[in-house]
Amino acid sequence: MKQVNVGLIGFGTVGSGVVKIFQGNSPVIDQRLGASLVLKMIADLDIDSDRGLEVEKEMLTTNADEVLDGPDIDIVIELIGGLEPARSFILRAVENGKHVVTANKALLAHHGEELFEAAADNGVTIGFEASVGGGIPIIRAIREGFPANRFQAIQGIVNGTANYILSKMAEEGRPFGEVLEEAQVLGYAEADPTYDIEGIDSAHKIAILASLAFGIPLDLEAVFCRGITDITPLDIQYAREFGYRIKLLAVAKRVGGEVELRVHPALIPEDELLAKVSGVYNAVHVIGDMAGPNTLIGQGAGSLPTASAVMGDVIEISRELLKGVKERLPPPTRNRDPQNGLRVRDINDIETEYYLRFTVMDKSGVLSRISGILGAAGISIASVIQKGRREGGAVPLVMMTHKAREEDVQRSLREITRFDFVLEETMLIRVENERAG
Amino acid sequence: MKQVNVGLIGFGTVGSGVVKIFQGNSPVIDQRLGASLVLKMIADLDIDSDRGLEVEKEMLTTNADEVLDGPDIDIVIELIGGLEPARSFILRAVENGKHVVTANKALLAHHGEELFEAAADNGVTIGFEASVGGGIPIIRAIREGFPANRFQAIQGIVNGTANYILSKMAEEGRPFGEVLEEAQVLGYAEADPTYDIEGIDSAHKIAILASLAFGIPLDLEAVFCRGITDITPLDIQYAREFGYRIKLLAVAKRVGGEVELRVHPALIPEDELLAKVSGVYNAVHVIGDMAGPNTLIGQGAGSLPTASAVMGDVIEISRELLKGVKERLPPPTRNRDPQNGLRVRDINDIETEYYLRFTVMDKSGVLSRISGILGAAGISIASVIQKGRREGGAVPLVMMTHKAREEDVQRSLREITRFDFVLEETMLIRVENERAG
Repeated sequence: MKQVNVGLIGFGTVGSGVVKIFQGNSPVIDQRLGASLVLKMIADLDIDSDRGLEVEKEMLTTNADEVLDGPDIDIVIELIGGLEPARSFILRAVENGKHVVTANKALLAHHGEELFEAAADNGVTIGFEASVGGGIPIIRAIREGFPANRFQAIQGIVNGTANYILSKMAEEGRPFGEVLEEAQVLGYAEADPTYDIEGIDSAHKIAILASLAFGIPLDLEAVFCRGITDITPLDIQYAREFGYRIKLLAVAKRVGGEVELRVHPALIPEDELLAKVSGVYNAVHVIGDMAGPNTLIGQGAGSLPTASAVMGDVIEISRELLKGVKERLPPPTRNRDPQNGLRVRDINDIETEYYLRFTVMDKSGVLSRISGILGAAGISIASVIQKGRREGGAVPLVMMTHKAREEDVQRSLREITRFDFVLEETMLIRVENERAG
Repeated sequence: MKQVNVGLIGFGTVGSGVVKIFQGNSPVIDQRLGASLVLKMIADLDIDSDRGLEVEKEMLTTNADEVLDGPDIDIVIELIGGLEPARSFILRAVENGKHVVTANKALLAHHGEELFEAAADNGVTIGFEASVGGGIPIIRAIREGFPANRFQAIQGIVNGTANYILSKMAEEGRPFGEVLEEAQVLGYAEADPTYDIEGIDSAHKIAILASLAFGIPLDLEAVFCRGITDITPLDIQYAREFGYRIKLLAVAKRVGGEVELRVHPALIPEDELLAKVSGVYNAVHVIGDMAGPNTLIGQGAGSLPTASAVMGDVIEISRELLKGVKERLPPPTRNRDPQNGLRVRDINDIETEYYLRFTVMDKSGVLSRISGILGAAGISIASVIQKGRREGGAVPLVMMTHKAREEDVQRSLREITRFDFVLEETMLIRVENERAG
């Protein structure tokens, strides 16, 4: 029986999942592959901690070079995360003619162009299904499921931690900080949650998906990015009264000759699928001009789901290795679509509906002054909630606008902020109400 | 530039969609493929009707052999549906060394084993993504997205017509026959809707998915199949009161060393994703031991979504043709998993919860007599609704049971039917309450 040899770098959460899959499902995998897929070596700086797995001592090394330069290693799995030394490791593996599978979205978002180019130059493949949506086969869907489509939009909930926090806040009416702390204790949020709650992780992921779908360069800087730290239970409650849920949404949407690339909290109509995806689940909504809207939902993180995606790529590459075929799919950097040159739209130019929560002094004339400024900017108000009287005190004044241009809204808010009856910074949340199937 | 030539047999709804994709998206497709994909010939008995498409006369033929034997045709798309002559056409194409792409689930469910074997013998591929779930890339997900998983269950709503009818019945409280008639007028149901409403089309599809996921032979006869014609607005209303929706569900589920294969109306808890999929949408829920639950939702039928899936396969096969690789994925018939020999479970042996609606005379002692029989068979009742007094008249008595064995339930119902206070046949609906993400 033919054999394909795999080396793993990074024996952490997902790395342990990969080892578990090898230990548990090798018979199924080998049968489906028609060959023997063997985990030869595991490199990690820590090879002593107990991961609840039985691994032969000889398979473990603290020296990544043994995997990267190992003459019998066909495929290198990189699961150490972060930019360096992951980038150097992958470049070295590729230069050694080894295929690479990675779950490292941060690395791809920052250095994807360089890495994919290096792989193409060396005639090897970089598999990265696990970099977005955990176990959800979203990259395969975009590249192989819908290749006959011009994509209109890819949008979704691609960060489980942020979704867990927002879901908990909504269910229990508790403030952000408190829920975050609990999530950290429960292991749903990391000690440093910055990437998750500030939207950076989601930005990494949408940059990758947008590049594939729209054939645009992988460019993290082009993604407009806002997190969820300012969202209050009050906003969640008002959103509900208007018939919406608040989710951290990643959006890549074609509008004319441009692509909107943005990550921010968004109001989503409560009857849409994305509004119903809660907890640690991820969901990606793909709209093709021919296939129409499709939604893929699954566990967006976690040891085994992510390892399942890693192994999907390992098996895919093994099939190609065994058949002696290279670059069955064109490398992402060499597959710039003719639906180009799509440019990334300036955030100031987007048009959407807005949720605006003003904190104002409770006195007469406030509503007319605010709506006057909005009206003068051509922003029309769809509905208003103003309740709770507190003589002379601060009260929320909440509005939903019709479609308006971001720049106009931002300029109006700056004007409105100058009124002395405006007591706090105004909360702005964009609305995403494209029908999501 | 290299070129791949395609011949189409069947210029109906989906065939027209394929032509539209060629006409609209060729630049995108050719760019992604790195070669020119050309529709060379279209065969149909009717080449005169106006399909709202401009097609050169020379491309059209009424003689399918021109496609099947055409020396320059690399890939044959079969979209005529039905068993014959579709089966003979595909066998002939395969014997001529041509790859085939089909959306014909009925044909695969009946003759899939023969066709896949013939393709394997001739070293060609049969693509069949479009046979299940329209534009949803479900077959690709099972074969390529989750190849490292042992599957625990594949279940879903795979017939848009039945789902449309049930959704309308639920929304408007109207009876089955009336909604069906309207659906026929609107084009959502065919003139002969038997396959859709009797569950046969869903049975075709789940037979295909189960074969791929569990490595069992493709055997339509093994699928237990019941349709939706008996479902009444009353059942939909009671189901709601218990917190459920009624959907036509296709289930392939591993239980111990057996696989349950069944299509029937099912009560699904209202907070589950599948319960929320309405109208013409399809949804397939895939549970892998590693990836956990994943749900794919999209348009399960229609000209363009189905054509999108057809073209996905055409492009996939073209990539392999261009790279000179054969059988990158093992043919379905030669990929029997070692998680075998899984046997198909007898429907009498399944265990689930049941919704039972008795129509009984409104007199004392009825509930105790019925619950007595159920209790004696070890079937315990979870909840009961009995309302509406009609002195001496017929009233519904509705029960939800705890988990029970099908055979015990059926035997008890036969006994209960013998009571003279039971006025009509009892409605039995199975409950599917596996957590669906």
